[in-house]
Amino acid sequence: MFKVKFQEYIDLVEAYLEQLPWNQDDFMCRTMHYSLAGGGKRVRPVLALAAAETVGSDPRRILSAAIGLEMIHTYSLIHDDLPAMDNDDYRRGRLSNHMVFGEGNAILAGDGLLTHAFEILTEPLPVPPEKQLRVIREVAAAAGYRGMVGGQADDLAGEGKALRLPEIERIHRRKTGALLTVSLRLGAILGGGTAAEIEALTAYAEHLGLAFQIKDDILDQEGDSAAMGKPSGSDLRRGKATYPSLMGLSGAKDYLREHIVQAQAALSVMPRPAPFLHEFADFIEQRQC
Amino acid sequence: MFKVKFQEYIDLVEAYLEQLPWNQDDFMCRTMHYSLAGGGKRVRPVLALAAAETVGSDPRRILSAAIGLEMIHTYSLIHDDLPAMDNDDYRRGRLSNHMVFGEGNAILAGDGLLTHAFEILTEPLPVPPEKQLRVIREVAAAAGYRGMVGGQADDLAGEGKALRLPEIERIHRRKTGALLTVSLRLGAILGGGTAAEIEALTAYAEHLGLAFQIKDDILDQEGDSAAMGKPSGSDLRRGKATYPSLMGLSGAKDYLREHIVQAQAALSVMPRPAPFLHEFADFIEQRQC
Repeated sequence: MFKVKFQEYIDLVEAYLEQLPWNQDDFMCRTMHYSLAGGGKRVRPVLALAAAETVGSDPRRILSAAIGLEMIHTYSLIHDDLPAMDNDDYRRGRLSNHMVFGEGNAILAGDGLLTHAFEILTEPLPVPPEKQLRVIREVAAAAGYRGMVGGQADDLAGEGKALRLPEIERIHRRKTGALLTVSLRLGAILGGGTAAEIEALTAYAEHLGLAFQIKDDILDQEGDSAAMGKPSGSDLRRGKATYPSLMGLSGAKDYLREHIVQAQAALSVMPRPAPFLHEFADFIEQRQC
Repeated sequence: MFKVKFQEYIDLVEAYLEQLPWNQDDFMCRTMHYSLAGGGKRVRPVLALAAAETVGSDPRRILSAAIGLEMIHTYSLIHDDLPAMDNDDYRRGRLSNHMVFGEGNAILAGDGLLTHAFEILTEPLPVPPEKQLRVIREVAAAAGYRGMVGGQADDLAGEGKALRLPEIERIHRRKTGALLTVSLRLGAILGGGTAAEIEALTAYAEHLGLAFQIKDDILDQEGDSAAMGKPSGSDLRRGKATYPSLMGLSGAKDYLREHIVQAQAALSVMPRPAPFLHEFADFIEQRQC
């Protein structure tokens, strides 16, 4: 049931991405499309669609806005992979954008996707325009210097340094947590959720975001390179502090479990049952790639 | 009179930028602020403010949105200067962003400014929210892959190639023209202009944008490096086709005049006189840096 629902959401996202009126004769459209079509689990738009459905809305009503989140996520991967940043040649088992199109074009592909995200976020929706403006504002704040971009800057500055847990978590909350959290908020706000529902989904998202990162670190240490699409152990080789390096593998797994439990507990105050989001947390804990 | 008005607009922009709640202890705020504080004539927000005033609105009512344009312009300069792009060590007589903070941080400073532009564009304004959404949509389209970013990609691809006038103008219309045009449209739309006024200011902006670029090329060939803040003749050395290289210096000056005249003619259908915008076109033709 969970898998079927997950695939339904993914199919909505893929169908929207495929019908984008992007001219494949245009070089920039190809560079942006290369990374956007790179697959992945479409976690951010899926969470937005699920949040909308959980508060009682038809998720298709807010699909364009959810796609905006995927564009922002994709741009951030392109820029993070650049030689001046994390210098990753591969992403999801394919050559990273700059390896195919060159650094200059990869920077521009990221810029183009980030900018287009905000165009798509203004796509007419069946919601009051004030609400749509509020969501655009929250997305920009979450993706910007106090959120995702700031987290990446801190991450870059922290490389090779012996960071402790509070510093690491501050980075993760901004670098990956902020966009995940705003994904659920976007779905809940545009779906017409109440303030209490939005708050509960925010708490869920914050625990889920940390869980996601802890699991990433665990997979990086013990994962299978082939399934991950990148060499395992790369964080350690780069001198990045990870949850397993700070609290041991078993400590990291306990900590992961704790955040999964808290994420699921946050859902309990929702007026409607939220089985998909509940199981999504388990999925994050159990994923192998 | 023109100079006084120009300075009034610039002062509004500078005052807004100075009161941004950016924490100077935060590294990313410093990297973004470095380039944003780099001075310049603030052409895009000034044109937006002037457009709002020309259609009968108080320009201060739309100031936050005008600042968003300056952030987008500033981000584009930071990314254009990167080694993988135009590789410029200097900008407006100061070291470019990546020369001070390193490439990775300069990419992030640009990303942060672009993202923050959209946050500031959602700042509450005394206009109907539908209108504000429309403006955000137009700004994203003008700055994105069909506009500014696409123009920069074409410019990068065209380096060292013998481009002809239609190709060059297509690049300029997107790389610099699109954001200038949307600056006037933003002011006109948010200022409550009629469809006819918005159309007239769009025509004005399109001629002004090309005039701006022609003048840039002329200055690059004959300008004073000290006043320009960068070595003159740099386009030629880089093998870029310029208006003077395509039509001779005197031909380029005639062509510049033609666009100034047409920009000013477009203003003649406006119901209110637009002396500032009229003289602004002359200013573009006569500027020495």
